[in-house]
Amino acid sequence: MSSSDIFIGETIGTAVLILLGGGVCAAVTLKRSKAQNAGWVAIAFGWGFAVMTAVYMTAHLSGAHLNPAVTVALAIENGGWDDVPVYVIGQLFGAMIGAVLVWIAYYGQFLAHLTDKEIVGGPGAQDTAVARSTTEPGPVLGIFSTGPEVRNPVYNLATEIIGTVVLVLAILTQGLNDEGNGLGPLGALITAFVVVSIGLSLGGPTGYAINPARDLGPRIVHSLLPLPNKGGSDWSYSWVPVVGPLIGGAVAAGIYSIAFA
Amino acid sequence: MSSSDIFIGETIGTAVLILLGGGVCAAVTLKRSKAQNAGWVAIAFGWGFAVMTAVYMTAHLSGAHLNPAVTVALAIENGGWDDVPVYVIGQLFGAMIGAVLVWIAYYGQFLAHLTDKEIVGGPGAQDTAVARSTTEPGPVLGIFSTGPEVRNPVYNLATEIIGTVVLVLAILTQGLNDEGNGLGPLGALITAFVVVSIGLSLGGPTGYAINPARDLGPRIVHSLLPLPNKGGSDWSYSWVPVVGPLIGGAVAAGIYSIAFA
Amino acid sequence: MSSSDIFIGETIGTAVLILLGGGVCAAVTLKRSKAQNAGWVAIAFGWGFAVMTAVYMTAHLSGAHLNPAVTVALAIENGGWDDVPVYVIGQLFGAMIGAVLVWIAYYGQFLAHLTDKEIVGGPGAQDTAVARSTTEPGPVLGIFSTGPEVRNPVYNLATEIIGTVVLVLAILTQGLNDEGNGLGPLGALITAFVVVSIGLSLGGPTGYAINPARDLGPRIVHSLLPLPNKGGSDWSYSWVPVVGPLIGGAVAAGIYSIAFA
Amino acid sequence: MSSSDIFIGETIGTAVLILLGGGVCAAVTLKRSKAQNAGWVAIAFGWGFAVMTAVYMTAHLSGAHLNPAVTVALAIENGGWDDVPVYVIGQLFGAMIGAVLVWIAYYGQFLAHLTDKEIVGGPGAQDTAVARSTTEPGPVLGIFSTGPEVRNPVYNLATEIIGTVVLVLAILTQGLNDEGNGLGPLGALITAFVVVSIGLSLGGPTGYAINPARDLGPRIVHSLLPLPNKGGSDWSYSWVPVVGPLIGGAVAAGIYSIAFA
Repeated sequence: MSSSDIFIGETIGTAVLILLGGGVCAAVTLKRSKAQNAGWVAIAFGWGFAVMTAVYMTAHLSGAHLNPAVTVALAIENGGWDDVPVYVIGQLFGAMIGAVLVWIAYYGQFLAHLTDKEIVGGPGAQDTAVARSTTEPGPVLGIFSTGPEVRNPVYNLATEIIGTVVLVLAILTQGLNDEGNGLGPLGALITAFVVVSIGLSLGGPTGYAINPARDLGPRIVHSLLPLPNKGGSDWSYSWVPVVGPLIGGAVAAGIYSIAFA
Repeated sequence: MSSSDIFIGETIGTAVLILLGGGVCAAVTLKRSKAQNAGWVAIAFGWGFAVMTAVYMTAHLSGAHLNPAVTVALAIENGGWDDVPVYVIGQLFGAMIGAVLVWIAYYGQFLAHLTDKEIVGGPGAQDTAVARSTTEPGPVLGIFSTGPEVRNPVYNLATEIIGTVVLVLAILTQGLNDEGNGLGPLGALITAFVVVSIGLSLGGPTGYAINPARDLGPRIVHSLLPLPNKGGSDWSYSWVPVVGPLIGGAVAAGIYSIAFA
Repeated sequence: MSSSDIFIGETIGTAVLILLGGGVCAAVTLKRSKAQNAGWVAIAFGWGFAVMTAVYMTAHLSGAHLNPAVTVALAIENGGWDDVPVYVIGQLFGAMIGAVLVWIAYYGQFLAHLTDKEIVGGPGAQDTAVARSTTEPGPVLGIFSTGPEVRNPVYNLATEIIGTVVLVLAILTQGLNDEGNGLGPLGALITAFVVVSIGLSLGGPTGYAINPARDLGPRIVHSLLPLPNKGGSDWSYSWVPVVGPLIGGAVAAGIYSIAFA
Repeated sequence: MSSSDIFIGETIGTAVLILLGGGVCAAVTLKRSKAQNAGWVAIAFGWGFAVMTAVYMTAHLSGAHLNPAVTVALAIENGGWDDVPVYVIGQLFGAMIGAVLVWIAYYGQFLAHLTDKEIVGGPGAQDTAVARSTTEPGPVLGIFSTGPEVRNPVYNLATEIIGTVVLVLAILTQGLNDEGNGLGPLGALITAFVVVSIGLSLGGPTGYAINPARDLGPRIVHSLLPLPNKGGSDWSYSWVPVVGPLIGGAVAAGIYSIAFA
C-alpha cells in the first residue's frame, strides 16, 4: 500500500470510528437527545458497529488498523516499522476530525446540555426533553475521552492492558482463521462483535479506550473546542489510555509469537 | 435491469422497509402495544433489520437502493441518470404503501392511543395496557416521519448530512470489499448493522431520516389518513429530511471519487 | 428427502424452536427467573435466535420449514402437496414437545409464580426473587401461546397476515439471493434477523404467532398440563393465529409469483 | 493436532471465555462499574460474544471445545478418548486463569463493592457510583459461578441438561451444514448466537453453566482469592453444573447418533 493510501484510509476510517463511537456517547448522555439514557447495551453495540463500519470502508486502502496498538502489534509481528508513523499520524488526525464531527452533529444538544438557556421546540416538535439536570463537566468529557470509575493508575492500567490484549489477539489470529480473506465483510463483523464483547465485559472500570488515538485525539479536541461550562480535560489521566493499550498490543504480539505462530 | 423490475423492486422493498421501520416506532410508542417503551435499542435494531429484510428481498430485482440519496449518489458515480425517476417514484410509492400497512397492522393501537374510548380486553386477554396517558399529536407523527429535538434548520441539516454521508459511503465502498458479491446475504447484514450504527450514534438529534422517501412518503400518508386527534404533519420541517440526505449523498459521492476510486 | 427425515427434522426443529422461544417468554415473565422483566428486546432476539438454532440444526434433514405457513407457501410455489401432511404433523408434534420442555426447564419458576407457596433458597443461593406479585393466569398462557392486546378478530387477523407475509416472502426470495446455498449458516442468520425484525416491528398488537404450529401446539399443552391456577387456554382466540398465518403464507406465495418469479 | 497445541488452545480459549463471560457478570453486578444494572440482555450477549471471541482465536489450535461437555460428546461420537484428559485439564486451567483475570480487571470495583471503604474519585472523575448498597456475598459468587434461583437439585439438573443438549446438538450438527468449513468465522458467529439464545431462553432458572469447566474453575478461584466479605463458595451446589452438562452432552450425542447421523 502506498503511504497516501495508508494516510487517507486511516484518517477516514478513524474519523468514522470516532464520529460513530463518540456519537453514541453523545446520544446516550446529552439532554434533548432521543437516545438519552439508552444504557450500556447501546454504548457497547454503538462502538462495535462503529468499528465495523470504519473497518469495512477502509480495509482495502490501509488495512484498517485505526488504532496505534494494532499498528504496533503488527509491526512487532511483521518486523516492518517504516509505515508506523504514517499510520499513527493518520489515526490521530482522523480521531480529531471525528470528534469535531460529533460536536457538529450534536451541536444543539451540547448547547442545551451545557447552558442554562432552554431551547424551546417549535409547534409540532417531538419534544421529549427531560427536566433540566444540573450541568456537570464530567459527562461532556466522557463523550470525547475515557475516564475511570475508581481512579487508581495501577488498576486502570491493568484493565486497559487486559482489554487490549483481547482485541489485538483476536485481530492477530484473524489471518489464521480466514484463509487469507483478511478484513472482508465477515472479518469486519467478527471484529465488531469482539469490540462489543470487550465493551460489555471489560468496559465497566475505565470505559475501554483500548486505543491511544481514540482517547488522545478527542481529548485534544475537547480542550480546544469553545464549549461553555465544559470543565477540564483531565490531562492527569490521559497517559493511562495511551500507555495501557500500547503495552497491551505488545503483550498480545508476544503471546501470539509464543502460542500461535 | 428492466424499468418494471426496478419499479417493482423499489416499491416492494421500500414498502417493507417502512412497514418494519414505522412498525417499530408504532410498537415502542403506542398504548396497548406489547413493546411500548422498549427503548432506543429496539428502535435502532428495528430499523437496521428493516433495511436488511427489504434489501435481501429485492436486491436481485432493482439493486435495492430504497433511498433517493443512494440512487443519486450512484448516478453521480456511474454517470447514468436515466433510471433515476423510476427509482425515486418507486421509492416514494413504496414508502406510502408501507406507512398505510403500519396503520393497518396497528389499527387497534392507534385507536386506543388517540381516542378517549377505552377498548376493554375480553376474557383471558393478555392485557398489559398502561394507565391512559394524555394523547399528544407529536408521538403519532413520529411513527410516520422524523422530527428534531432542538428545532434549528442549520443544526438539523448538518446532522442529516453527516448521517447520510456515513450510510452512502458504506454502500459505495461495498463493491470494493465484497469482490463483486454485491448485496448478497453478507452485504445485507453489513448494511443492516451500518444502519443500526447510525441510529445508535447519530439518531439522537433528528431521528435519522437519512432517506428522503422514508420521511416524505409517510408524512403524506399521515396528512391523508383519517386518524382522530392526529395533529399537524409539521410541513415546515419536511424539507430538511429531503434536502439533507440528498446533499449527504452527493457529498459521499464526492468523497468516494477523491479518496477511494 | 425421505418422509422419516422430514418428520424427524420438523419434530426436532420445531421442538427446539418452541423450547427456546417459549423459554424466553418464561424467562422474562416468571417469578424467580434471573431474566424477569428483561423486556421486549430480549423477547425479540430470543425468538430470532430460537429460529436460527432450530433451522441450523435441521435444515439438512427436512429443509427446516418449522411452520405450516412456510410449508403451504412452498407447496403453492412448487406444486407438490404430497409431503405437506408429514411436515405439518411433525411441526405440531414438535411444538408440543417443546412446550413440555419449557415446562420442565422452568418447573420451579412455574411453581413459584402460580402458587402461594414461597420456595426459600438455601444458604448461599443467588436469590433475587422480587416481591410476590398477584398471580394471574394470563401471563402463564402467554408463555405458551399468543394473545391480542386489543381483542378484535379483524384487526388481529390483519396483523398476523401482514407479519407472515414478511416472513414467508423473505424465505421465498432466499433462493434468488443465495445462489443455491439454501439454509446454510448465512441463510439461518438472515432468517433469524428477519424474525427479530418482525418481533420488534409487528409483534406489538398480537405477539406475532406468524406460525400456526407455534401457537396451537403449546396451547394444547397448556390445556393439558397439571399447573395450578393456570387459567383458561383462551380457545376463542385460538383460530386467529392459525388462520392468519395460513392466509399470510398464501398471500406471500401469490406476491412472489407475480413480482419475483 | 498435537497435545501441546490442544493444551495451549484450550487453556487460552477457556481463559478468554471466562475473562469475558465472568467480566460481563462483574460489569453488571459490581458497584462503580459503568455497566452496573445493564440487565439480562447484556449478560446474554456478553457470554455469547465471549464464546465467539474465544472460539475464533483458538479453533485452529485445538478445535476450540472450551467445554468438557463438548469434548465428551465428540469423544462419544468419534470414539476417540485419548485426548480427552488434555482437553479437560486445559479447560479447567484456562477457566481458573480467566477468573483471576476478571478479578484483576475489576479489582477496584471488587474493593468498592465488598468493603465499607468508599473510594473517592479524583478531580474530573466520571463518577457515577450509586448509593452504597448492602454488600452481600451472593452477587460476588455469581461473578464466578452459577447458582439456582429455586434450589432443587432435580429441577436444576433438568434445566442444565436441557440447555446443554441444545448447545451440543448445535455443535454436532455444524459439520453437516458447513461443508467442512468447521469453526471459521461463520461457525463462530452461529455458535455465539446459539449461546445468546440459550442464555436468553434457558438461563433464567440456574444461570446456564452448560459447561463444567466454566463453573468449577472459577468456583475454585473464588474459594482461594483473598476477597474480604466474599462469603461461601456454595460447594453444596457445585456438583449440579458439572454433572448436568456432562449428562446433557451424552444425551445430545445419543440424539445425534439416532436422528442425524
